[in-house]
Amino acid sequence: MPRYALGVEYDGTDFLGWQTQPQDPTVQSTVERALAFVAAMPVSVICAGRTDTGVHAVGQVVHFDCESVRTERAWVLGCNSRLPDNVAVRWARPVVEQFHARYSARRRSYRYRIVLRPTRPTMDGRYAVWVRENLDLQALRAAIPALIGEHDFTSFRTVACQANSPVRTLHRIEVIEQGELLDLHFEANAFLHHMIRNLVGSLLMVARGERDPAWIAQVLALRDRAKAGPTAAAHGLCFMAARYPQEFALPAEHCLPSAP
Amino acid sequence: MPRYALGVEYDGTDFLGWQTQPQDPTVQSTVERALAFVAAMPVSVICAGRTDTGVHAVGQVVHFDCESVRTERAWVLGCNSRLPDNVAVRWARPVVEQFHARYSARRRSYRYRIVLRPTRPTMDGRYAVWVRENLDLQALRAAIPALIGEHDFTSFRTVACQANSPVRTLHRIEVIEQGELLDLHFEANAFLHHMIRNLVGSLLMVARGERDPAWIAQVLALRDRAKAGPTAAAHGLCFMAARYPQEFALPAEHCLPSAP
Repeated sequence: MPRYALGVEYDGTDFLGWQTQPQDPTVQSTVERALAFVAAMPVSVICAGRTDTGVHAVGQVVHFDCESVRTERAWVLGCNSRLPDNVAVRWARPVVEQFHARYSARRRSYRYRIVLRPTRPTMDGRYAVWVRENLDLQALRAAIPALIGEHDFTSFRTVACQANSPVRTLHRIEVIEQGELLDLHFEANAFLHHMIRNLVGSLLMVARGERDPAWIAQVLALRDRAKAGPTAAAHGLCFMAARYPQEFALPAEHCLPSAP
Repeated sequence: MPRYALGVEYDGTDFLGWQTQPQDPTVQSTVERALAFVAAMPVSVICAGRTDTGVHAVGQVVHFDCESVRTERAWVLGCNSRLPDNVAVRWARPVVEQFHARYSARRRSYRYRIVLRPTRPTMDGRYAVWVRENLDLQALRAAIPALIGEHDFTSFRTVACQANSPVRTLHRIEVIEQGELLDLHFEANAFLHHMIRNLVGSLLMVARGERDPAWIAQVLALRDRAKAGPTAAAHGLCFMAARYPQEFALPAEHCLPSAP
């Protein structure tokens, strides 16, 4: 059966996360309804990264198998005409049956956005978490190197995490300031459940001067969720991209620069 | 009676514009209710620029007279605790009775934000207008100089505009690209009703190649609204700042660099 990949973006504010569940609306069920209309038959999708309630995405990737033959343009425009304002399909590609949105992905990247202001933000507060205290970004940056590389991230995953292994390879945490916005870009082979929000919660404790930068390495080594900081709010998080081997010929932003 | 100035920002999406009217919610009535709570008496505000339904603001300025004495901190935090998520007070200052948010303002600046993408945006589409066609920004920029300076802007004001004079001094239109976002920054002594959205509607006709850059100067000279382009959508527009003589000692971003 032909297999297709789609690039999907969504404003997670009004969704109960990605995955279909008894309560609606979820992004998955919304996308599947639009695809079913275009395909004129039921369609099930599998995504690169299941986002939680309130988490946004600009670079989610899904795949699905479907007998209905449609052009890339028909999938994109047909879905977008059926989807609500807070979800859109960015691109569609036919892919080989070896492509799997979840298992073929070699890297995922997320952005955690913070807005630094003394007073409560309105527009910026929709997609960023408000922090009113002054942050010590030098301390924040000093805490990061201990997290980079392959580690057991038990201290930073929720107890509800269903992954078999708590080991992940964190390639990068980049801190970028632009005016009142502070972006933390995370890139890893994959992330555990709540891993980024738990890392942010602990890194903010360091940035607020409540802990030393060296505390992050200690927490990591303890492999105990109870020793780390709180889980940062969902609405600051945005799934930016999933990256795949070039052989799958996805749009450029989803290809790895070279074979991993 | 003591007079105060406030800096106000709002997400205009769910408001019927600034000005109080029979239908709710408006930004003015929402801000006045919060101020009345903090002051423990009714408060009426006057703003620097009355924005239309769906238009946003990060730098609106208002003034009000009130017998109740409160600190700057009490006005800001008190109001913000009563205001809904889509409005916030950024600062408060006691001002002299000669200060008037509307009449003392020497310049206003607005941003009109466009998002350039082949497919419908989600998050970026909330505060920017989606344009899917390729735009000729060189033509757009070539059309701008004819608009700068003191002109009769009759061709670009709505027939419902209540201003006595159609003459305004447009100091600046700056075009800034950042990735998929295209920002047009407008600065003038004041703007007529719908003036920016009508200018954007006509400038987009030039950018799409439907008109030559020189057409803008012809339309301006004709002083006929029917000769110009359509009114661009409200949700791309954001009131950035009102600027006052330095003697009023408002926060730095609201002061003119030197006496006008």
